Amino acid sequence: MGVYRIDLGYDGTRFSGYAIQPKGRTVQGELERALATALGRREAPPTSVAGRTDAGVHARGQVVSFATLEAVHLAKLEKSLNTMLGPEMVIDGVEEADEDFDARLSATSRSYRYRILNRRRHDPLRANYVYWFSDPLDVTAMNQGVAHVVGPHDYASLCRARGGKTTDREVYAAEWSTDGDETVLDITARAFCHQLVRSIVALSIDIGRGRLDPDEVPAILDARDRNAARGTAPPHGLVLWSVGY
Amino acid sequence: MGVYRIDLGYDGTRFSGYAIQPKGRTVQGELERALATALGRREAPPTSVAGRTDAGVHARGQVVSFATLEAVHLAKLEKSLNTMLGPEMVIDGVEEADEDFDARLSATSRSYRYRILNRRRHDPLRANYVYWFSDPLDVTAMNQGVAHVVGPHDYASLCRARGGKTTDREVYAAEWSTDGDETVLDITARAFCHQLVRSIVALSIDIGRGRLDPDEVPAILDARDRNAARGTAPPHGLVLWSVGY
Repeated sequence: MGVYRIDLGYDGTRFSGYAIQPKGRTVQGELERALATALGRREAPPTSVAGRTDAGVHARGQVVSFATLEAVHLAKLEKSLNTMLGPEMVIDGVEEADEDFDARLSATSRSYRYRILNRRRHDPLRANYVYWFSDPLDVTAMNQGVAHVVGPHDYASLCRARGGKTTDREVYAAEWSTDGDETVLDITARAFCHQLVRSIVALSIDIGRGRLDPDEVPAILDARDRNAARGTAPPHGLVLWSVGY
Repeated sequence: MGVYRIDLGYDGTRFSGYAIQPKGRTVQGELERALATALGRREAPPTSVAGRTDAGVHARGQVVSFATLEAVHLAKLEKSLNTMLGPEMVIDGVEEADEDFDARLSATSRSYRYRILNRRRHDPLRANYVYWFSDPLDVTAMNQGVAHVVGPHDYASLCRARGGKTTDREVYAAEWSTDGDETVLDITARAFCHQLVRSIVALSIDIGRGRLDPDEVPAILDARDRNAARGTAPPHGLVLWSVGY
């Protein structure tokens, strides 16, 4: 028996998100189908994933794990998966992990990056990977705003509710920076509740365009009410950047 | 009567090239349909284009011109076109040009860029915009090779034949450079014959991987025979970068 770790990235544009659903093409669905084929089985072994990305969200450093009873030829599996899945999904490595490793449960941090293209014209060659926002953004104010979001907090105002589950989380770090014509958020937490990053981006944009004062953020968090926030930025600017263990 | 110039870029991934064809979705087809709608006409006026890009080839600085009898409201036309076509195609500007301006005939140079992703693993987030080549490339040798391609020359060995038309052209400049994990060709000519850039890329790759000596390039050109060359690199690494007038 062995536990295996797969590191992968994908272009989320044409997927209905990571997690398997009754309808739609998903990253998990494609990955597990390829895994079953590569292992010569009818069904893939159960898999665990570090970040269940939404439809349209991309990944650079996603991690998936699975256990098998039979031994796995690592290089062969990696090559088969890349042949079947690439280049929309790229396997960066398959390795044997400790027997108690689980991609989701063992993760100690997740880092996401959100890219805003902040210029007058859109760029067709980045259209699937950045959110285009043409009005000027005050990055200093945006950073004052996200400083209040660093936790621990109950993020109920910034999470999409999922059946009464806790929305207590801890955001370790969040910072906006400028990279040429892009305004970029790097944010890390132990774990994120659903739509937390994109809600923080929407809040930040309202701050950056002068429609919200950074000092109003604590009251929004305290409200613990989704309607107190500023909605959700679109998914295609978001990338699961890396996972820490 | 006025002559108008449209500057535009597009993601060529889902187009069957620029030029209208009996079958397939084309940049010209989409642009002319939007132009007809924006001008309130049944059919678009005839258009002229600087670079007839192939299927999968992208554009950053494409130029199109057309003439109309009626006056055109520039800002309104630009906005309508972007609303109908974006973000896969982005109009960077619509302006009135000299009455003898023609996007194709007036152009004095075209510059293209070709991007090779040169690393062990592919990158799913650049898969539509770079050609992935994982073996090491000797950029110095590639530059020795393309130095021989700078013209004027008869490029018959490096052009896809089009009904006996001349393949005499003048390549003004061609240079490979390194940009992080990418190996990039910037190449400029007054005009290119069909598939010239991609044939030069294929030739360069064979040089870069040590399968062809740079000094063999003159003999390949002298052969004036398509079979003397090294085929054609895939289209998706190529961008029409800019057009000079």
